[in-house]
Amino acid sequence: MDYKKRVGKLRQYSGKLGAILVTSPEDILYYTGYPSHDNGFLLITKSKSTLFVSPLENDAEKLKTVDVEYLGKGVLTNKLKGKIVGFDESSLTSDLFLSFRKSGIKLKPISSQIRKPRQVKDHWEIEQIKSAIRITKEFVGRLELLNRTERQVAFSIDSKMRDLGVTNSFDTIVGSGSNAASIHHMPDNRKIMTDDVVIVDLGVKYNGYCSDITRTFSQKNQKWKRIKEDVKEIQMSIIDSVAVGTKMKDLQGLYEKLMKKRGYKVCHYFGHGIGLSVHESVDVLEENMVITVEPGVYIKNSGGCRIEDMILVTRNKPKILSDFIL
Amino acid sequence: MDYKKRVGKLRQYSGKLGAILVTSPEDILYYTGYPSHDNGFLLITKSKSTLFVSPLENDAEKLKTVDVEYLGKGVLTNKLKGKIVGFDESSLTSDLFLSFRKSGIKLKPISSQIRKPRQVKDHWEIEQIKSAIRITKEFVGRLELLNRTERQVAFSIDSKMRDLGVTNSFDTIVGSGSNAASIHHMPDNRKIMTDDVVIVDLGVKYNGYCSDITRTFSQKNQKWKRIKEDVKEIQMSIIDSVAVGTKMKDLQGLYEKLMKKRGYKVCHYFGHGIGLSVHESVDVLEENMVITVEPGVYIKNSGGCRIEDMILVTRNKPKILSDFIL
Repeated sequence: MDYKKRVGKLRQYSGKLGAILVTSPEDILYYTGYPSHDNGFLLITKSKSTLFVSPLENDAEKLKTVDVEYLGKGVLTNKLKGKIVGFDESSLTSDLFLSFRKSGIKLKPISSQIRKPRQVKDHWEIEQIKSAIRITKEFVGRLELLNRTERQVAFSIDSKMRDLGVTNSFDTIVGSGSNAASIHHMPDNRKIMTDDVVIVDLGVKYNGYCSDITRTFSQKNQKWKRIKEDVKEIQMSIIDSVAVGTKMKDLQGLYEKLMKKRGYKVCHYFGHGIGLSVHESVDVLEENMVITVEPGVYIKNSGGCRIEDMILVTRNKPKILSDFIL
Repeated sequence: MDYKKRVGKLRQYSGKLGAILVTSPEDILYYTGYPSHDNGFLLITKSKSTLFVSPLENDAEKLKTVDVEYLGKGVLTNKLKGKIVGFDESSLTSDLFLSFRKSGIKLKPISSQIRKPRQVKDHWEIEQIKSAIRITKEFVGRLELLNRTERQVAFSIDSKMRDLGVTNSFDTIVGSGSNAASIHHMPDNRKIMTDDVVIVDLGVKYNGYCSDITRTFSQKNQKWKRIKEDVKEIQMSIIDSVAVGTKMKDLQGLYEKLMKKRGYKVCHYFGHGIGLSVHESVDVLEENMVITVEPGVYIKNSGGCRIEDMILVTRNKPKILSDFIL
């Protein structure tokens, strides 16, 4: 991986700052290849990049892609003193912010610049995302729902993930019957019955890269079967409009229009960028960005339907990466 | 659960503040019973407690223990305006801190006061911790190490956890041979051989409560078998000193003395508080606190040994909650 190139892009986006402090685990992984489990800090100055980690991560020094130093009283603060430091205001906690500022360090929020290089994926990254999706197929294709509780279904998915050597990219959602009306439902002990509509929303992390796919099962429920056809149509219309230069907010406008036309209430955003994080911010679509498109209809005390696929933005037609998952 | 009583304790510790803003998922769970997956906010004022969650968590309104409002532009800021707000500086991110302050809200860091009520566990909490430990026994008692890679061992533990309906309290550590010299080693593709010393450090969450237990296997390695006996002796000496009124820093002093006497380098703290979080801050021991005691010896290019147990502080002798796990 060309980490120098990635850091170069960041420097380009962030102007003439003397120092940039990267703090989210996903960004640290992106710029160094190091999967920090504890709180790590990546300091990027004009001359070099240095990763600061807890002394408990005493194997970090094996890392070839970046210099490593161990954290200790004042270690990082001393490096930052007298500098104007661009930092990630969306992940740095207030205690550290206040402590740095007390030491006379000037802090400038540049979260969106730090994340910007991650928006467009390179060939290798797209391959990792495809692999994450391929592994996700293993569960969705073999779901046993009937007469099992939502929790049993969710835990069996999560167990199988680990058998295949991957972890969750987020907590698996299984919502059945009236529980499917809850958008981010936490699986409970409701037993899934024949007539139930069931939403399953799940994803894995493969080499750090996330999948995020939702399927709704409604074979025996005529009402929700019809709604599902509507949701699928809405989804396909949005996907058809995914193109280089299109704005996410315009796709949202389209989504809201399509939903209202059919009399459905809009309960959430139509989709999001995805990569090392499940939710990544995207503004205007560029080639090799990956987004999800996930229209959803929810009716209190009845159920819900959401269909979510992952889309690669190309110079030609958008590519649905997850359409082989039924 | 008596959430009112818990909130009452917090109000007592935090003085005359008009408002307290609780932001970590563990604290929100403790004070409301709500397992927030997204970013939630619990606002505690003199008259009532209100939980603010994302509209995506549209089933939060079922919650009986606290009023629920959905987040949206300015919703929370408007409630805080003109108030002096005690907040959790260790979890509130800088962007929110800066945005609240820009709106004229006076913020006072009271992280340690917010956490303080969680330090001493009640009867029900101790039962949950005991259950988490009991479930942990299921894996540690049945580990198959030989000829498997560290990753295979770790993933099979994590898979089994989900079969039993629990999740990890932290990423499972399996470090074998020279990898065991890494304190927080991330399991890799090293195959475990007969002569290897192997550290396995794992824990589950049961009803939100964590276990954290480490065992070292060194049957066929005479050098590490001897070191393990030393580590066990050091651990028992520390545990013997666990008592109401004892300071954690004094136990650390004892640990360092015992390690130095045997010629070992001190690489980390001797232990930590545990509960809804794997690592909880504790200063002076009180009855019904739970801590871990985990001395460790690490030798570069050779291996490592750590033994970690969970201890309940009582008015009489300390109770080792995890000593039935071999």
